[in-house]
Amino acid sequence: MRGGSGFLFDKSADYLNMLESSHQNLAMVTCTAPVNIAVVKYWGKRNEDLILPINSSLSVTLHQEQLKTTTTIACSRSFQQDRIWLNGKEEDISCPRLQSCLQEIRRLARKRRNTGDPTSDISVVSHKVHICSVNNFPTAAGLASSAAGYACLVYTLSQLFGVEGELSTVARQGSGSACRSLYGGFVQWKMGERSDGKDSIAEQVESESYWPELRVLILVVSAEQKSVGSTSGMHTSVETSQLLKYRADVVVPCRMVEMIRVIRQRDFPAFGELTMKDSNQFHATCLDTYPPIFYLNNVSHRIISLVHRYNQFYGETRVAYTFDAGPNAVIYTLQEHVPEFVQVVRHFFPSEANGSEFVRGLPACSADLSEELKRDLNMEPTPKGIHYIISTKAGPGPCVVEDPNHHLLGVDGLPKKNEVSD
Amino acid sequence: MRGGSGFLFDKSADYLNMLESSHQNLAMVTCTAPVNIAVVKYWGKRNEDLILPINSSLSVTLHQEQLKTTTTIACSRSFQQDRIWLNGKEEDISCPRLQSCLQEIRRLARKRRNTGDPTSDISVVSHKVHICSVNNFPTAAGLASSAAGYACLVYTLSQLFGVEGELSTVARQGSGSACRSLYGGFVQWKMGERSDGKDSIAEQVESESYWPELRVLILVVSAEQKSVGSTSGMHTSVETSQLLKYRADVVVPCRMVEMIRVIRQRDFPAFGELTMKDSNQFHATCLDTYPPIFYLNNVSHRIISLVHRYNQFYGETRVAYTFDAGPNAVIYTLQEHVPEFVQVVRHFFPSEANGSEFVRGLPACSADLSEELKRDLNMEPTPKGIHYIISTKAGPGPCVVEDPNHHLLGVDGLPKKNEVSD
Repeated sequence: MRGGSGFLFDKSADYLNMLESSHQNLAMVTCTAPVNIAVVKYWGKRNEDLILPINSSLSVTLHQEQLKTTTTIACSRSFQQDRIWLNGKEEDISCPRLQSCLQEIRRLARKRRNTGDPTSDISVVSHKVHICSVNNFPTAAGLASSAAGYACLVYTLSQLFGVEGELSTVARQGSGSACRSLYGGFVQWKMGERSDGKDSIAEQVESESYWPELRVLILVVSAEQKSVGSTSGMHTSVETSQLLKYRADVVVPCRMVEMIRVIRQRDFPAFGELTMKDSNQFHATCLDTYPPIFYLNNVSHRIISLVHRYNQFYGETRVAYTFDAGPNAVIYTLQEHVPEFVQVVRHFFPSEANGSEFVRGLPACSADLSEELKRDLNMEPTPKGIHYIISTKAGPGPCVVEDPNHHLLGVDGLPKKNEVSD
Repeated sequence: MRGGSGFLFDKSADYLNMLESSHQNLAMVTCTAPVNIAVVKYWGKRNEDLILPINSSLSVTLHQEQLKTTTTIACSRSFQQDRIWLNGKEEDISCPRLQSCLQEIRRLARKRRNTGDPTSDISVVSHKVHICSVNNFPTAAGLASSAAGYACLVYTLSQLFGVEGELSTVARQGSGSACRSLYGGFVQWKMGERSDGKDSIAEQVESESYWPELRVLILVVSAEQKSVGSTSGMHTSVETSQLLKYRADVVVPCRMVEMIRVIRQRDFPAFGELTMKDSNQFHATCLDTYPPIFYLNNVSHRIISLVHRYNQFYGETRVAYTFDAGPNAVIYTLQEHVPEFVQVVRHFFPSEANGSEFVRGLPACSADLSEELKRDLNMEPTPKGIHYIISTKAGPGPCVVEDPNHHLLGVDGLPKKNEVSD
């Protein structure tokens, strides 16, 4: 994989891949994009159509080896209509947010042609596209996949149509947090001020190599009941929560400055504390919503309690939790603390899965827990509270997949057999 | 019972009761005081010693037939020291808040004597007291008993020492919310502005007879784990929650005005909605506290969800929840809706208890639930989630108990046998 640029008119390996995988006028490109987990949370839009947020936010892009979306897009003059397959199932392309992204990228591609870019193609933009997208993680994990999905869609379209430059305003219109998945490492989404959203963009704060010791553990919790979706949830919050308005106007601007500072200083205790406080405040505004929204369940509460007791045992913030619109915990910590903390989780959330199934992703060494630690944590075990852990770290932004064998669409422009399930 | 005034020097039935129940120089008085449940919540002190709050609050005083504290206080020159028995067990009288109340009442009694009140006694204030106090509800119910307890202590002491006038500043120094239990009906605690707390007082907004249709159901939920106590909880919240400060400074002043208005208008839908919003906002500030405080558990969440679905079914707010520093729900509704809503609770929180044990207090007629209602509420039943319901209504403030047979202390100044358990 590599960070790519427009390939249709570049007589490179990409171009040859395209030719290899094409039949009559078929152009095809495959890219991957990462998931991101916010440490200063986005909750609430000031413009629902353009997806302009009421506050800035900041996230860590997770490594694609553990979590990624892969998207292949083909275009051909022989295609009758735009079509999309998500995780093996054809979906309705008329979804307004999909349409926003498609229209916006085509507009940028035409603009590029009209401004006389000598490398621009004159016909491809008018062709219909076939889009095929899969995640390498189960939807059941409850991880927000829309950020990686829309980032991948927009990035892949930009490669196909040779559109360069600022893509985060396009991805943002698919799913707000998708704009942050266009960069690796530590990424801020600046809320902007303009009513047209042109300045509501994502920017990399530091790359994924800036803080190599940082680790991420996703604790996949079983949800008992379906919770309110984030789109309708944040709409209701903006309408009804006075605390959310204060958070957005007064609290978050300070926290953005502070978060960027502690990341640049690689100050884990400060980073962890601010991350936990911001997660808690986001969930507080959900509770202040009318009717109230609950994303945390009893297992989430126990994880929060465990993290605070663990840190208290050591007298410093060694691990930090954050929760999005669901009960799963995402734990930030440093590499050196992973083995013990994973063992703590195993001990207090005993699972039927054996070791290798319970911890997935980056391998974790095993560790023994002292009796003193177990006693001081002073919690009743919660069997089966956590399904499994995904162990990962910060990673890069979207990449082009060079190997044409990895295309999700065949030379007929339809999903390859192994990608389809009905 | 009646609202009483100083009895030591009033040659009335009270005085005779005192003589009957006394031996050498023993004066004795017994009073009762109610529990109150806030609809605009108190959370956070600006002065921890004087117990001055960061915002005003408003509560409904509950009827003492269902929930009350009874306190007998005797004083005698033969007593060697101040002593206190709570729910049958002798406790340490040196507790600072008990001492605050005792000292303050004695100061007021001396002041009255020094200002030459002709009815004031010259010796009784210097006598030691024996205090015996019991609740007519189980501590296990998790209902905050300190408000009724301190209100009853202060009221009974005032009767014994013949202190009249503003008692809420004294009760406030025992437990903040105790000041509201000195009045019946709808009571506000005005936060005041003075640093000495002289203007931080409770006032009756309307009496218990003002809104006779109003009903209160206490849904006693089993707590899985001991939660953070309210004193240390609110201390941590004041120290760490930015949202609490905004709530206290900006949100609550408006809500106090609004709450008084809707009570005076007996506008249940508006009263209910504001009550629910304020409960949710209080719990939101607990979640914004660092480390976060959780008082609501999964059963609380389900009750909240049930209430919103029930109201949605009828297209109006017929029932409203509020939660204090624990998982128990207090439901406000109107008399006409009690039978059906109780049946809804029975249906979705099936208990092993039979009808009479499950619903205590004011009798509730039985009601049938339509299939349409059960279907629309669309919840899985949670067996044993609720232990029992206490059905009650608004009631009067503290009262003097006339019948000397109800004294909790014997003529020897010690708890009667049936009141002691070790």
